[in-house]
Amino acid sequence: MNRKIRYGMVGGGRGAFIGAVHRIAAAMDQQIELVCGAFSSDPKRSQASGADLFLPPERCYGTFEDMIKSEARLREGERMDFIAIVTPNHLHFRPAQLALEQGIHVLSDKPATFNLSQARKLRELVRKTGLLYCLTHNYTGYPLVKEARDLVRAGKLGKIRKVIVEYPQGWLATRLEATGQKQASWRTDPKRSGAAGSIGDIGTHAENLAEYVTGLQIEELAADLTTFVKGRKLDDDGNVLLRFQGGAKGVLHASQISVGEENNLNIRVYGEKGGLEWHQKPEGYLEAFANIYKNFANHIRARLEGRRPAKDDPALDYPKIEDAVRGMAFIEAVVKSSRKNAAWTKLEV
Amino acid sequence: MNRKIRYGMVGGGRGAFIGAVHRIAAAMDQQIELVCGAFSSDPKRSQASGADLFLPPERCYGTFEDMIKSEARLREGERMDFIAIVTPNHLHFRPAQLALEQGIHVLSDKPATFNLSQARKLRELVRKTGLLYCLTHNYTGYPLVKEARDLVRAGKLGKIRKVIVEYPQGWLATRLEATGQKQASWRTDPKRSGAAGSIGDIGTHAENLAEYVTGLQIEELAADLTTFVKGRKLDDDGNVLLRFQGGAKGVLHASQISVGEENNLNIRVYGEKGGLEWHQKPEGYLEAFANIYKNFANHIRARLEGRRPAKDDPALDYPKIEDAVRGMAFIEAVVKSSRKNAAWTKLEV
Amino acid sequence: MNRKIRYGMVGGGRGAFIGAVHRIAAAMDQQIELVCGAFSSDPKRSQASGADLFLPPERCYGTFEDMIKSEARLREGERMDFIAIVTPNHLHFRPAQLALEQGIHVLSDKPATFNLSQARKLRELVRKTGLLYCLTHNYTGYPLVKEARDLVRAGKLGKIRKVIVEYPQGWLATRLEATGQKQASWRTDPKRSGAAGSIGDIGTHAENLAEYVTGLQIEELAADLTTFVKGRKLDDDGNVLLRFQGGAKGVLHASQISVGEENNLNIRVYGEKGGLEWHQKPEGYLEAFANIYKNFANHIRARLEGRRPAKDDPALDYPKIEDAVRGMAFIEAVVKSSRKNAAWTKLEV
Amino acid sequence: MNRKIRYGMVGGGRGAFIGAVHRIAAAMDQQIELVCGAFSSDPKRSQASGADLFLPPERCYGTFEDMIKSEARLREGERMDFIAIVTPNHLHFRPAQLALEQGIHVLSDKPATFNLSQARKLRELVRKTGLLYCLTHNYTGYPLVKEARDLVRAGKLGKIRKVIVEYPQGWLATRLEATGQKQASWRTDPKRSGAAGSIGDIGTHAENLAEYVTGLQIEELAADLTTFVKGRKLDDDGNVLLRFQGGAKGVLHASQISVGEENNLNIRVYGEKGGLEWHQKPEGYLEAFANIYKNFANHIRARLEGRRPAKDDPALDYPKIEDAVRGMAFIEAVVKSSRKNAAWTKLEV
Repeated sequence: MNRKIRYGMVGGGRGAFIGAVHRIAAAMDQQIELVCGAFSSDPKRSQASGADLFLPPERCYGTFEDMIKSEARLREGERMDFIAIVTPNHLHFRPAQLALEQGIHVLSDKPATFNLSQARKLRELVRKTGLLYCLTHNYTGYPLVKEARDLVRAGKLGKIRKVIVEYPQGWLATRLEATGQKQASWRTDPKRSGAAGSIGDIGTHAENLAEYVTGLQIEELAADLTTFVKGRKLDDDGNVLLRFQGGAKGVLHASQISVGEENNLNIRVYGEKGGLEWHQKPEGYLEAFANIYKNFANHIRARLEGRRPAKDDPALDYPKIEDAVRGMAFIEAVVKSSRKNAAWTKLEV
Repeated sequence: MNRKIRYGMVGGGRGAFIGAVHRIAAAMDQQIELVCGAFSSDPKRSQASGADLFLPPERCYGTFEDMIKSEARLREGERMDFIAIVTPNHLHFRPAQLALEQGIHVLSDKPATFNLSQARKLRELVRKTGLLYCLTHNYTGYPLVKEARDLVRAGKLGKIRKVIVEYPQGWLATRLEATGQKQASWRTDPKRSGAAGSIGDIGTHAENLAEYVTGLQIEELAADLTTFVKGRKLDDDGNVLLRFQGGAKGVLHASQISVGEENNLNIRVYGEKGGLEWHQKPEGYLEAFANIYKNFANHIRARLEGRRPAKDDPALDYPKIEDAVRGMAFIEAVVKSSRKNAAWTKLEV
Repeated sequence: MNRKIRYGMVGGGRGAFIGAVHRIAAAMDQQIELVCGAFSSDPKRSQASGADLFLPPERCYGTFEDMIKSEARLREGERMDFIAIVTPNHLHFRPAQLALEQGIHVLSDKPATFNLSQARKLRELVRKTGLLYCLTHNYTGYPLVKEARDLVRAGKLGKIRKVIVEYPQGWLATRLEATGQKQASWRTDPKRSGAAGSIGDIGTHAENLAEYVTGLQIEELAADLTTFVKGRKLDDDGNVLLRFQGGAKGVLHASQISVGEENNLNIRVYGEKGGLEWHQKPEGYLEAFANIYKNFANHIRARLEGRRPAKDDPALDYPKIEDAVRGMAFIEAVVKSSRKNAAWTKLEV
Repeated sequence: MNRKIRYGMVGGGRGAFIGAVHRIAAAMDQQIELVCGAFSSDPKRSQASGADLFLPPERCYGTFEDMIKSEARLREGERMDFIAIVTPNHLHFRPAQLALEQGIHVLSDKPATFNLSQARKLRELVRKTGLLYCLTHNYTGYPLVKEARDLVRAGKLGKIRKVIVEYPQGWLATRLEATGQKQASWRTDPKRSGAAGSIGDIGTHAENLAEYVTGLQIEELAADLTTFVKGRKLDDDGNVLLRFQGGAKGVLHASQISVGEENNLNIRVYGEKGGLEWHQKPEGYLEAFANIYKNFANHIRARLEGRRPAKDDPALDYPKIEDAVRGMAFIEAVVKSSRKNAAWTKLEV
């Protein structure tokens, strides 16, 4: 199939942060091209944003509904092959749902949905339609993270005993949302972010990373969430004890009030025979993000060409709907445990 | 007073580990000299160990009782000024008790005693006799740790919100005690080590460090201890959620099964205005240990010269009997919490 | 101007290394698109390489002459705006020369040409045609390198006294070229690489970096080149003493036999008031490369739109023909000095 | 022999820097004791300094001549076994000479003497008397440096090709000597420091380290010395190209005007099969210094007990008179080369 995979974007207009990251990630390997967008709920802003990206005006839509329905009517090879959803959390579900209903593959920023119930609904739709779904837990796109997973999988560490996974940030140590800063505003707003603050925003990355590297699922957890900044409505810090299937123990902590920390995701895994450690800091963030896009696009390409990737084909190595549901179950378990004074709580997927 | 401060050692004979470290620490600043010892319960071994150290035979004793009583009869300036106890945990209490009863100052390796009740008894004796007591939580001897404490105390970090303190080691990842290795044997033996394994051996260092740097006391904790190595009787790993007085939260984890880690004590403290981080690895272990000895010896010297150190005199900057009691209370709280499936448990000093 | 800047590539076909890097760099910011290529002197290979990149067959040319002449006949907006030359060193000059003669802007991998004389000819052509020329000394594309340059320029370091610039690699510690490895073969071949080996390949990066960061030109140098690997025809290691205009001194060393080093470019600059240090290792290689492309493309865009960038516009911040000539003068001076047993030798631009 | 090795100190009175370091190093392993001193040319200051160290007044001398002659008259076991010379450079030679003449072993701070001619005289005396001489190039006392030397010696790196050795400091970036600062004053004074400034003070450490680790001697060098600080009489920066016996090449640079650098000695060695790297920063400075003392004391002990250490006995692993002469030859060669505009100059031992 001699053409690039085509996508449309929901969100990511002028002034947005993560949308631009997604576009770079999509562009980097030159296998994917942006063909349309509903960049903003303000049609003019959507048009202007599309013009910045050299898109023709007729494919810059005012709403995601319009985009999905219009594009679905185009012929294959012209229409978008998948939709990339880069809006705040509360606007993830509906475009994902509609796209799946219209036969369009879906890539979504994390966390997958506003709550666990929505994630389960998407899982149903994905199963029913057979379409592809990708959740951009971009940290699993790092080559060294994949190497870590491979080492564990190959048994080099022996049976896993202990996992420490950390995600400290410091940018919300003061009440930044009160200044109108856009990123802070929606992330600290229960109506747009969901039931959790830091745990939803970055704790889910830590959870996904721990499960990806170890190949083990978190069975139960005991969580102590705190809101340190006065007036804030969601947690800005969380410390969590973990118990994995098979007996491994762990600690997960995520924080957005850890002054001096920028984006210090890291994990340590100790097994009976060996240990490993990975820190996010020095590596290529964009390249890792691009790997998620590339693998997903290659899976779509295989579909379009009628091929079925082999089990170990990298085209299958991206976070899927099951990861999406687990992430939402993690958020709900953490919040529930913390409300019960850190009582042990199981993940219900 | 134109002479060095004199000490006698209990334990630390040939083949011991920490005794030699204590002697180097004592020697380094050239303010302290070793004058006698009961290095081993085997009198011949005690003599031989003393000869290695150029001590006269008559001051190499077969028992600590003999040493303490004999030395107490010598005149001041000749007898030992303090006793240094470097035996396994279950042998800390009795020589400390006897020395205090005989008017001799006491320096002891940590943890202070076998259980909390003994520590409380020592506290009573120290109060009653007015003698000095030093517990060698050597990590608080590092200049950078003192700098960290000073930064917090001066308010540079603002009100403290979060503390992460870690002490991972890997040397007990296999059942080393089964090989007869001396250090492993007593540390994993409930009769000699006490109610806790890794938490008593190194978790107490982490606890002491966190309280020293932040100036805050741990109020309650939720602990999940594990014994990963089959056949071992004490915990070899522990993950603990912390709540400090005044509302700060924290995580403490200590482990002796974290393969690949040598002795990686570290702490991170985040306040409203700033954060700090300290790692044990690259600094001078012996120099830090020596600082504890030096400060304690200077306090004894002040006593001998009838001086009372000012409040901020470094001669007062060493861990004292209150730290000893808190350490034992920490151990008991952790063990109790873990038995109740990580229920929140208060420290009872 | 509502379209991307368009380029054609010379070299970079299947199996090439740096060509793919250039294409990623060009793609990343979504401002530039590849529209044609002469990827190989083998027309079939050129076609196949173009097909991999989703180019139409009619714009995959068999020779750079054909490409330049054919594209020059297309109308603006359709034809390539610039040519990217990613061939071995001896094939840089002719496509650059022809493109300039045909009115096409030029971007070239480094070193600019096979020898100094060719670089001077290109300088003449650039001056005469008024076209733009970019040399991809990609390391000056790193944000932190630009920050370093800005610090020096703003006088934060005071007058510069000393510069240490290093570029150790280890991949040519054995006679890799004898195995037929493509990258090693041409780099160690005087007919394709030029008068210098490691000094031309990576020493020029170090030279360019030192001059970029300090804003000072190297006046004279004393060089000791060595060929450590038997049978190799060009230097694989060089140590150079530097003297800059204005009295600063320095050391530059570049090596491809430093086993264990991957690509460890770094620089330290010390002035009267401060010092700075930069290491290539942890940063985003592709992003830095992309910055060179982006700035160059923005300069071309300004030309197409009839705008003249302001003096401090980033569109002007990329290595130009003067850097190209200085790099070649550096190579010739080093080789000359080394032949005279490290006699001081001036750079003749 | 059931006693500690005894030493007397020349220099190192109140306010001195390196003398205190020597005393800690000597004390640390508890094998050596200080028994006398001529700490200052001011007899009262010498007495006071000795009292600080708990020495009896009768063994605190006003001059080194008095000390050496008086101690030489005492019986063995009471008198000092060796003298430790910790004065400025111009006062190294005479006490060393006198001690050797009086049958006392000598340990001296570096560089060994004021000039090469004096070092050769000491070499003659050492050969004639058969006494022991130790030069405290303390950096060779680091366990990891010894490990590096062992790796090279065992052939793990293959034939050595390239050596980079650096010693940047920044504390003399301004004219500190003009403020009367004691350390800066004598180090920048040709009458007390010798023919070289930074090259004599720290460049010799770098030279000794390079030769110790590689086991290769520097054959010739090309040096570019600079005095950056106006009014200073000796070099404060030097860049040196090295050629070792057997064909290895190298770079040595030492600097005391590299602002921001504290004491960043480091070395990299590359051979045909492997490379290694050592940085001074994170290790135990005092412990390394103590290792030099310990080995030297053990050599003296063997002498006193009539034993001859085996070839690989650590008691022989300390810098000796040959290192002393090579260090002075290095200084003279560097100064000579620099005066000839970096002409290649051989080391004449």
